[in-house]
Amino acid sequence: MNNPKLKEIVARMKERDVAALIIPLTDPHMSEYIGDQWKFLEWLSGFTGSAGTLVVTMDYAGLWTDSRYFIQAEQELHGTGIQLQRYIKKEDHYANWILRHIEQGSTIALDGRMFSIAQIENLKKMLKPKNYDYKFNFKAIDSCWGAERPKPKSKKIFLFDNRYAGTPRKNKISELRKVITAASADWSLISALDEIAWLLNLRGRDIDFNPLFYAYLLIGTDDSYLFIDEEKLPEAVRRVLESEDIYIEDYDCIWQLSDIAYGKIIIDKEATSISVQDQLRSDQWIYKDSYVKHAKAVKSTIEIQHIHDAMVQDGVALSQAFYWLEQQEDGTVTEYDFSDQIMQCRKKQLGYYGESFPAIVGADDNGAIVHYRPTQESAKTIGPDSIILCDSGGQYLNGTTDITRIIAMGSVSDQFKEHYTLVLKGHIALARLTFPIGTTGGQIDLLARQALWSHGLNFGHGTGHGVGYFLNVHEGPQGISPRNQIPLKAGMLTSNEPGYYLEGSYGIRIENLILVEESEYEGFLQFRTVTYFPLRTDLVNASLLDPGEIIWLNEYNRSVYEILSPHLDEQIRGWLEHHCSTT
Amino acid sequence: MNNPKLKEIVARMKERDVAALIIPLTDPHMSEYIGDQWKFLEWLSGFTGSAGTLVVTMDYAGLWTDSRYFIQAEQELHGTGIQLQRYIKKEDHYANWILRHIEQGSTIALDGRMFSIAQIENLKKMLKPKNYDYKFNFKAIDSCWGAERPKPKSKKIFLFDNRYAGTPRKNKISELRKVITAASADWSLISALDEIAWLLNLRGRDIDFNPLFYAYLLIGTDDSYLFIDEEKLPEAVRRVLESEDIYIEDYDCIWQLSDIAYGKIIIDKEATSISVQDQLRSDQWIYKDSYVKHAKAVKSTIEIQHIHDAMVQDGVALSQAFYWLEQQEDGTVTEYDFSDQIMQCRKKQLGYYGESFPAIVGADDNGAIVHYRPTQESAKTIGPDSIILCDSGGQYLNGTTDITRIIAMGSVSDQFKEHYTLVLKGHIALARLTFPIGTTGGQIDLLARQALWSHGLNFGHGTGHGVGYFLNVHEGPQGISPRNQIPLKAGMLTSNEPGYYLEGSYGIRIENLILVEESEYEGFLQFRTVTYFPLRTDLVNASLLDPGEIIWLNEYNRSVYEILSPHLDEQIRGWLEHHCSTT
Repeated sequence: MNNPKLKEIVARMKERDVAALIIPLTDPHMSEYIGDQWKFLEWLSGFTGSAGTLVVTMDYAGLWTDSRYFIQAEQELHGTGIQLQRYIKKEDHYANWILRHIEQGSTIALDGRMFSIAQIENLKKMLKPKNYDYKFNFKAIDSCWGAERPKPKSKKIFLFDNRYAGTPRKNKISELRKVITAASADWSLISALDEIAWLLNLRGRDIDFNPLFYAYLLIGTDDSYLFIDEEKLPEAVRRVLESEDIYIEDYDCIWQLSDIAYGKIIIDKEATSISVQDQLRSDQWIYKDSYVKHAKAVKSTIEIQHIHDAMVQDGVALSQAFYWLEQQEDGTVTEYDFSDQIMQCRKKQLGYYGESFPAIVGADDNGAIVHYRPTQESAKTIGPDSIILCDSGGQYLNGTTDITRIIAMGSVSDQFKEHYTLVLKGHIALARLTFPIGTTGGQIDLLARQALWSHGLNFGHGTGHGVGYFLNVHEGPQGISPRNQIPLKAGMLTSNEPGYYLEGSYGIRIENLILVEESEYEGFLQFRTVTYFPLRTDLVNASLLDPGEIIWLNEYNRSVYEILSPHLDEQIRGWLEHHCSTT
Repeated sequence: MNNPKLKEIVARMKERDVAALIIPLTDPHMSEYIGDQWKFLEWLSGFTGSAGTLVVTMDYAGLWTDSRYFIQAEQELHGTGIQLQRYIKKEDHYANWILRHIEQGSTIALDGRMFSIAQIENLKKMLKPKNYDYKFNFKAIDSCWGAERPKPKSKKIFLFDNRYAGTPRKNKISELRKVITAASADWSLISALDEIAWLLNLRGRDIDFNPLFYAYLLIGTDDSYLFIDEEKLPEAVRRVLESEDIYIEDYDCIWQLSDIAYGKIIIDKEATSISVQDQLRSDQWIYKDSYVKHAKAVKSTIEIQHIHDAMVQDGVALSQAFYWLEQQEDGTVTEYDFSDQIMQCRKKQLGYYGESFPAIVGADDNGAIVHYRPTQESAKTIGPDSIILCDSGGQYLNGTTDITRIIAMGSVSDQFKEHYTLVLKGHIALARLTFPIGTTGGQIDLLARQALWSHGLNFGHGTGHGVGYFLNVHEGPQGISPRNQIPLKAGMLTSNEPGYYLEGSYGIRIENLILVEESEYEGFLQFRTVTYFPLRTDLVNASLLDPGEIIWLNEYNRSVYEILSPHLDEQIRGWLEHHCSTT
């Protein structure tokens, strides 16, 4: 092991007699996108993917990641002395590797701040066949990452105006207090950053693409505590919070939680770290799925109105960007240029705040790499026959957007049309579904795949993720994927994005956001598509569509034209009219 | 509380300072169908449904059951002093009632023999908001049910011939031993009766409709122990077992488990009682989903061949019975007579062993009662315009069958045809599905409902249950229902039985058994329908079917005729030909 960073870690492990150290890729709030000060795994290994776990022993280091990142990880780990471990099926879990390689009675260590209670329960269960000792306070990130560790951002947080937020902070907290009382508890501890931002109607800038700030929040039946770096807190915000009995503690005071919170605390197993729980006596906590997570997922009437406006703005911006692309001379624009153009067009929209994730613009074979991101240096030039997969989204004060379209610069093959049409059939099947209250995303996911399956084809990602409201573009608990067990409720917003990827040739994905609403039948719900942007009919093999599908497609394009055209100048309106043509 | 049985129980509770006693409806093997000696809840309350839980306190007794049994429970509980508690949604769980009515610090008791480890984990989690004490050894069934308690049946068990069983006992055990070794364990304890019968290629007669016997089984890496009442064990069977190092212990010796099994024991949380676990030290068990449960679900090639034969026999018997019904004079036959006739026709088939469950024959409004069972006394007479739902199944040495058809004695309304056709569309959608390896029953359940949903209709039961092989007609782990998370594998057998029930008028259910098999596409599976009995086309509104559905229906009926007709005499062959007509 020649990697000096790993050597340093192994030395610390020796000191404390640790046989294996597990290093995750998250932060103390179990975030998907994380602040630079928590990117320890990237610093150690060079790996820049969004999911992975490093296991270090005296003479070995391996990084476990999933198929999305195999190619990238292989490149990034080259020369680091860290071996790529491909996580394909359950048996490939690093715990099974530990069972095979680490002797009974040895000590397994990790930094409990970055592991949820549920993860630790699962890990202990998997490791049960051997009687290991555990150290959950091994903070390699503090002891081994010195001067190079980035300081946390300290940009100011800000009040999210009630005009946009819709429901005042007081009302949200009062609903949460009912839950606390009903559970015979005294407090609810909230660790998830999007839940804190939503509940307090606050936003921040600690993490790229996510308007979040690092904090913990303890809501009591009378008063509450926000644990936050005070530098980030404008005096005006503090005064507002204190006037509502929300008091400020330093971020690090979360480690004195039991001094502050007498009585029973509700904690969410999935969102709370084992280190936070380890401070408490076992009769001091009650496990309960977070109320805020579920409440936040159901958009209010006011939020839904704003989302409509944001979607119109996003459709206008995209129309301008797509029109711009068609005007450029062949061979002069790269994937990166186009993604930049989309951002520039969004910037002109009222209330624009930033992109909701780094745009995926993949031409031809790059389109088949699901997590492809063009960089200025390496981006491919768009050619006269390119097929481009374009997946992007914006953060606006009135909503978060996420949309994918396929652009064909020239004519396309029959094979492409067939694949495109099978994906479209899946998209339409979901979009026009009626379903009873209580139905989960896991139950309906198959509709997006059935047409592909009947040709022996499939796609390897979920069909739809929940979407926040000027919050995370990936937001639970609802979603449309095989294992999702959350009932869909009126007001929930998810993506609808089936795809098909032909390696080395092209990628296809068709993504709109869909909102759950009541249907004409009592006890039944349906989806309303709230993304407004044309679905080109010239890419379709209409003979594969049934009459109902054709009606849906034509009505969708007609409504897109009606909604967007009043906001466009004449030239772009002409472009839109052409692209909204019916079949 | 005037009920003397309850008074007796309350007196015992007082002696031991118990505030609430929970009495379940199962046996120590978590069986669905149970032996008479375990029907304590029925004896106490008069309730004869298959699912329910009684909670008794000092001054209250309530029976929690689900919607299938509301009407029946109300009648049966009348005058017993036991109140019906309707379990509709999660919040209605009896644990929440306990939280509301029983004080902090009180003692909650139950008989841990009849609660699985997983159930107790869940119960403790639900009750955590109040700090209760627990007594898991409160055996009211032993202390309060005296002379009236039925003796266990002691009919002999018998060897299930390899000709039918297909895979020898030795091979099955040797596969299980690999699992034990791989988990670094020494033993696997099996509590589920169908798993024991399958693994040992033995059958018994302890429970009606299920060829099972009460026992526990402990498989070690060298020798094994069968815990069974020796009276039930023929000497020849004992010799066979002992020759394969399977030794006999008395059934009650399970309570000396730790004397027999040194080392680590694999137990299945869902199938093993908390009382069995409570004998062991916590480092002595490893939780693991039962290997046998999963292995048993995948039918072998030999089993599949036998199942085909059993299905032909069943189709022949039903043809005879349905033909018989049409020959009877109007108004002379009751639901019960017809169910008896079906059994008589099955009895003539080779290898017939019994019915696989009590037949559901419901005419008109009775058809809409999902769990209706005709008795000789109360059965309704079948009229000239009756619509009859007929759900029945047989146990044969070469397989277990389960089939539902609708019989219309006269002409039917347009509304009925529409409902029937929507159910049929769901049935066909599943029957002709192609799906990738790894797909679960939960993912595909919606296909059986989608046509109904689009009209604001639905049915309240699962779409398909796993089916055993000369074993239980309900057999996990696979199934087609919204929450089922088990991947479907080639060789798994389930029912396909969507329905629709119009209260007060009629019930519709169309049920065939379907077998998972490989498809023409690599990595993809499909279903093969293995039940052979006509689906009448004159009940269908063909304008609601698409061309692919019509082709499926006609091909199915054609193949039924080809398969069954050689086994029928001329008259019945004519009847079959008529009913296999195409649309």
